[in-house]
Amino acid sequence: MDLELPGLHGSLGSPVIESMNFLNEVAQQYPDALSFAAGRPYEGFFDIGAVHRYLDRFVAHVRAGAGGDEARVRRTLLQYGRTKGIIHDLVAKNLRIDEGIEADPESIVVTVGCQEALFLTLRALRRTERDAVLAVIPCYVGLSGAAELADLPVLPVANSADGIDLDDLVRTVERAKADGLRPRALYVVPDFANPSGISMPRDTRERLLALAEEHGFLLLEDNPYGLFHGTAGRPPALKALDSARQVVYLGSYAKTGLPGARIGFVVADQPVTGAGPESGGRQSLADQLAKIKSMLTVNTPPLAQAVLGGKLLTHDCDLRAANTREAQVYRDNLRHVLDGLAEHFPPGSSPEVTWNAPTGGFFVVLTLPFAADDALLALSARKHKVLWTPLHHFYGDGAARRQIRLSFSQLTPDEIREGLHRLAAFIGELSAHHP
Amino acid sequence: MDLELPGLHGSLGSPVIESMNFLNEVAQQYPDALSFAAGRPYEGFFDIGAVHRYLDRFVAHVRAGAGGDEARVRRTLLQYGRTKGIIHDLVAKNLRIDEGIEADPESIVVTVGCQEALFLTLRALRRTERDAVLAVIPCYVGLSGAAELADLPVLPVANSADGIDLDDLVRTVERAKADGLRPRALYVVPDFANPSGISMPRDTRERLLALAEEHGFLLLEDNPYGLFHGTAGRPPALKALDSARQVVYLGSYAKTGLPGARIGFVVADQPVTGAGPESGGRQSLADQLAKIKSMLTVNTPPLAQAVLGGKLLTHDCDLRAANTREAQVYRDNLRHVLDGLAEHFPPGSSPEVTWNAPTGGFFVVLTLPFAADDALLALSARKHKVLWTPLHHFYGDGAARRQIRLSFSQLTPDEIREGLHRLAAFIGELSAHHP
Repeated sequence: MDLELPGLHGSLGSPVIESMNFLNEVAQQYPDALSFAAGRPYEGFFDIGAVHRYLDRFVAHVRAGAGGDEARVRRTLLQYGRTKGIIHDLVAKNLRIDEGIEADPESIVVTVGCQEALFLTLRALRRTERDAVLAVIPCYVGLSGAAELADLPVLPVANSADGIDLDDLVRTVERAKADGLRPRALYVVPDFANPSGISMPRDTRERLLALAEEHGFLLLEDNPYGLFHGTAGRPPALKALDSARQVVYLGSYAKTGLPGARIGFVVADQPVTGAGPESGGRQSLADQLAKIKSMLTVNTPPLAQAVLGGKLLTHDCDLRAANTREAQVYRDNLRHVLDGLAEHFPPGSSPEVTWNAPTGGFFVVLTLPFAADDALLALSARKHKVLWTPLHHFYGDGAARRQIRLSFSQLTPDEIREGLHRLAAFIGELSAHHP
Repeated sequence: MDLELPGLHGSLGSPVIESMNFLNEVAQQYPDALSFAAGRPYEGFFDIGAVHRYLDRFVAHVRAGAGGDEARVRRTLLQYGRTKGIIHDLVAKNLRIDEGIEADPESIVVTVGCQEALFLTLRALRRTERDAVLAVIPCYVGLSGAAELADLPVLPVANSADGIDLDDLVRTVERAKADGLRPRALYVVPDFANPSGISMPRDTRERLLALAEEHGFLLLEDNPYGLFHGTAGRPPALKALDSARQVVYLGSYAKTGLPGARIGFVVADQPVTGAGPESGGRQSLADQLAKIKSMLTVNTPPLAQAVLGGKLLTHDCDLRAANTREAQVYRDNLRHVLDGLAEHFPPGSSPEVTWNAPTGGFFVVLTLPFAADDALLALSARKHKVLWTPLHHFYGDGAARRQIRLSFSQLTPDEIREGLHRLAAFIGELSAHHP
């Protein structure tokens, strides 16, 4: 039986999915190129022995709570499990320690990576074709992808040096409402955003919370990079400042825990009314997300939760302390990138190349004298053996822009030095052709 | 911020989600009742030590293929991974050995349980509000749930002693088309269906394949119980007879592998045309499902795949051999249930209770002299301390029926004996009130 793509779900023909594929596959196409493209965590400290130790640590923890009931220990790890997860209490403790967030463990749903948390939330918020989600553009493709899959349009909000243009946010919300739409939520990465690297100052966060309450939309806070800040620290997470339950907090352990466990979570403590008499008519948004999860993945693999839970237990749920070495690698790499760029492209020189200077995270954005599209990336990869990410992939419209993203999380200092050398050669050659 | 249930996704208010919740929670509400309700695998052979051994076995396998590249070994288990999975070749070998199915490993997507495979497939097949999926009713609630979540209506097809009423299938398809609908696929569990326990004879399978080709719909074959057949064996899987690529095969390792790993998969070898020039305009349905997966869960936890992969390797991918003990437990339990029912309800006695006699699987269906709803189940649990599943949950309409499902996979022979004793007391008491 033959199928035709135009007869399948609309997301499969979207530019977003093409971008996700492109970003996933480009490194495989050019295995001998140095890659500033992948936003993956550093692999230098990966240790398979630790997986066994984490598993044992979690088993001991479950055993301590099971009062000698070994069948219960085995069941917890090896049988179908609780829909909301089995490490929710450890996640709550970790949020208190790392982020100063007080979360009721019952308001947490443990998910298959942050991506599932995103989809659960967007699917729950999409009732009719009038519903929409707001996002600061350029935006992480995972948000655009989950929104496509949930049939939820993304309303773009302009960026600024503070991570969002709040005036544009208000205009966008008011225009959407005038058009009969319901903007349900705004997706933001307040710390070291992907792809921009920008962080929101504290007063922007406070104004954003006030605007969300005033205009009646949720804030979807995604925070994969917050722990990897510079010596100056960072402002509190939105959720730590959230007195009116405006914030749904989307968590990822891919960068701070173990990417191979694929454990994420969502904190959704918003009350939901009208949930039927048997629940007293009142449940939380987390309860609704759990219902959707029961139709989507049933539960997050208990064995994967156990390994991640063992890592949390091993470090007393303090992932800031657990990531001391990794945080140092990312800080050093950021410095190497900024120093190297300053060396290759001194002020006033030609070609004119500028960049932003995040104080943490995985990403720096360069502005070039020419529009950088996928064809130029292919040229850069083939001829100069260096990969980067055209920023247009984070706009979802396919129009090439003069900006590129450099990711430096997976490289060594030598690779960064050599990679920037190659990048400068590519930019020099291209600028000669685009005077 | 308060949310209202009627403003959230429609699936959250559906009877299906209420049924899933009810079925998940009823056992927790009555922990001291004997349960014929849960369709979970037997726990008597669970072994946490095996998890460590399976992990080591898979690591050795990856190492053997990595030519001394230890960084690659660590990356395979601990980093973000391939969207379609890392054990696809082992799954293909397992399908050849256990089911006689020849599947190209590239046509396989490894998923977070069979439930994610179901959702990926239904989401892909849902283009517009005209699309629909067919299902034999009574039907596994996971199908109904995934369809709700994909905004895809389920068109019911009547059951029969052969697992489907083929005349009703044709009538339903023709009526749907006349109504402007597009029936994209029929969901079936050909072996020991949940909840009915019924299996399709070989000639029904062959006629079903011919009808699917004639009327242009896919067959979604779900096969969690096929390995647990009686001494008479079973007919080939639909996918093993599928010469025209009509069948999308949905696989689960929850019963034959490790439920706690949550590993399932889908074989989707259908060609998809119109996929863009860079792919030669031709991909498989599996490629499309992988794209949707990249927006949903990114990839199935490599650590969970590794544990399941280690189990497959340990048994040379022969799960029939690996499950000799489990299969014997299920066969013995089925016999205990059928013998016990014959003892409690001999022919011609009152109250009149009848049941079907599957030759394998996890389920038997009883027909009672009264309609069995959730209130009666609560009474049975509270007063007689025995749980079962009202069959109405598998119809999705909330209307009580005179049938109940008994699941016997998780019980010991003593528990079955005592459970049937309690069930007979409950039925006796109720029949006295419903003469």
